[in-house]
Amino acid sequence: MAEESVAGDLPVKRPREEEENGVCVSAVAMETGGTKESDSISTVIPGWFSEISPMWPGEAHSLKVEKILFQGKSDYQDVMVFQSSTYGKVLVLDGVIQLTERDECAYQEMITHLPLCSIPNPKKVLVIGGGDGGVLREVARHSSVEQIDICEIDKMVVDISKQFFPEVAIGFEDPRVTLHIGDGVAFLKAVPEGTYDAVIVDSSDPIGPAQELFEKPFFESVSKALRPGGVVCTQAESIWLHMHIIEDIVVNCRQIFKGSVNYAWTTVPTYPSGVIGFMLCSTEGPPVDFKHPVNPIDAKDSNKSKGPLKFYNSEIHTAAFCLPSFARKVIDAKAK
Amino acid sequence: MAEESVAGDLPVKRPREEEENGVCVSAVAMETGGTKESDSISTVIPGWFSEISPMWPGEAHSLKVEKILFQGKSDYQDVMVFQSSTYGKVLVLDGVIQLTERDECAYQEMITHLPLCSIPNPKKVLVIGGGDGGVLREVARHSSVEQIDICEIDKMVVDISKQFFPEVAIGFEDPRVTLHIGDGVAFLKAVPEGTYDAVIVDSSDPIGPAQELFEKPFFESVSKALRPGGVVCTQAESIWLHMHIIEDIVVNCRQIFKGSVNYAWTTVPTYPSGVIGFMLCSTEGPPVDFKHPVNPIDAKDSNKSKGPLKFYNSEIHTAAFCLPSFARKVIDAKAK
Repeated sequence: MAEESVAGDLPVKRPREEEENGVCVSAVAMETGGTKESDSISTVIPGWFSEISPMWPGEAHSLKVEKILFQGKSDYQDVMVFQSSTYGKVLVLDGVIQLTERDECAYQEMITHLPLCSIPNPKKVLVIGGGDGGVLREVARHSSVEQIDICEIDKMVVDISKQFFPEVAIGFEDPRVTLHIGDGVAFLKAVPEGTYDAVIVDSSDPIGPAQELFEKPFFESVSKALRPGGVVCTQAESIWLHMHIIEDIVVNCRQIFKGSVNYAWTTVPTYPSGVIGFMLCSTEGPPVDFKHPVNPIDAKDSNKSKGPLKFYNSEIHTAAFCLPSFARKVIDAKAK
Repeated sequence: MAEESVAGDLPVKRPREEEENGVCVSAVAMETGGTKESDSISTVIPGWFSEISPMWPGEAHSLKVEKILFQGKSDYQDVMVFQSSTYGKVLVLDGVIQLTERDECAYQEMITHLPLCSIPNPKKVLVIGGGDGGVLREVARHSSVEQIDICEIDKMVVDISKQFFPEVAIGFEDPRVTLHIGDGVAFLKAVPEGTYDAVIVDSSDPIGPAQELFEKPFFESVSKALRPGGVVCTQAESIWLHMHIIEDIVVNCRQIFKGSVNYAWTTVPTYPSGVIGFMLCSTEGPPVDFKHPVNPIDAKDSNKSKGPLKFYNSEIHTAAFCLPSFARKVIDAKAK
């Protein structure tokens, strides 16, 4: 029951040269754990899943595996679901943890409510990626929203989430949701200008199928698809691990988005370095002050079927934009 | 080159019953990684250090080991230093990572400046634990401080830090510092009432030598040692992993400290769940509003020899007190 995939065999581009020699390995060893030199990099604690990637060289987070529930290969990536001993069920794509039942609330609530609570009465929302449905679940908490489109490239992610993560996939059940299976880049190009109040880009890392979602042409399409004063929130990696990627994103967004351009971050224990960032931008038009939400959701959460918010509140919304000095220095410089 | 220590053999009390059967294991397997049933729990990726503990069951963070620089056993704990491939040198006590050169700035700066920037002109400061010297380095940035006492129980930690972490141990070189090797609990009992403006408790986890530092009698001694309106900041675990411990600390502190009682947190990638919390309390007297620092250090940092602050700033000071809803709910309830 051991799986191994070497990045050299995957159709991925490396974000940086120093990672050319890196290998992207995921492995689950239940009864055995190879220890011979040849596969030492993929040897894990027997019965544990270890996350090793050139995106975070020299470190690996491991979760104890109770049972592997699904292992498959879609047209785009390796898909795995396992029952962990202390983080609930875990969704893994290409060897990288996407969500766990225990801490998914932090990522889903923040990537959704940071943008939607920053504009009054969002009506039309587009989600790129987010095939697990968690972001949809959070968008649906906003009673002002009339239309929720989602474009996910990998149908297997949607099907697997509905099968194994009902409390996350519940987002698909909202009648306002329309699911499009396809390439988010192509989908956006076809969107009439100024269609959406908000676009949320819930992508995986920029190696593999999500790579284009971190490049300039994609941000240009997002900008066109937004109405004046519309907002985008995109997954923007870790201030501890990926400042070079974040710098590129900030530079691109500053050139393309003529409104606000801000970086926020939050804690997610099962993501590398324990944090994940978000790039929040607005188009030219009615000004958006992301740091001071004008559309609070705390009190008026009307979707009791989904349970109350576990993580997000207006205080932590504002706090998310306060950066450590080492990150503020770099991001402020690039944002000017 | 494999080291293994089973908590059952250590003179430690477990904080919770469910951990009675847990084992506290640290292991570094350089050339080999055992995989037979008997030691599967301690098997790690060969060449990697893995942090496995009943304090965070079912998960383990691993760092790639370039070279083990020191392994020893003091009167109180196992001490190890290794060169990691991407986090610089790493200090490990009883199998738990205490600091890495790459991210120590976050912990040292926050645990120090959260209390010291919350009161005007701190003059006398006591550090309990903190034998690596990093907190001293940060306290010394405050030009108002005239006396810095530190009581560390384990001389080996001080010696090892001076030998392997000169940029951290530089804190010992400040002429205002007096080092006391001994038991912090006993030291505090002997301190005349109202001696200190601030006490910083830089402890390890509440299993092992630091356990008493999380108990009520210790907090009572701290309260007595502080002047009216004096402040204490103590390491207070993770909101993701240790809410039961945090609840106990909050309840104790609310009973003992008649001024402010607040919980703050920050990101530290190499600590379990990627975050660490701080309990900040003030004694009866001049009121202290921890959330709004009255003694900013950002601009007036006069200790260029130590380099500029890397993490702390006034914005992140205030942000550190904003809690996720799941944590705020529990802590606010106990703080009343």
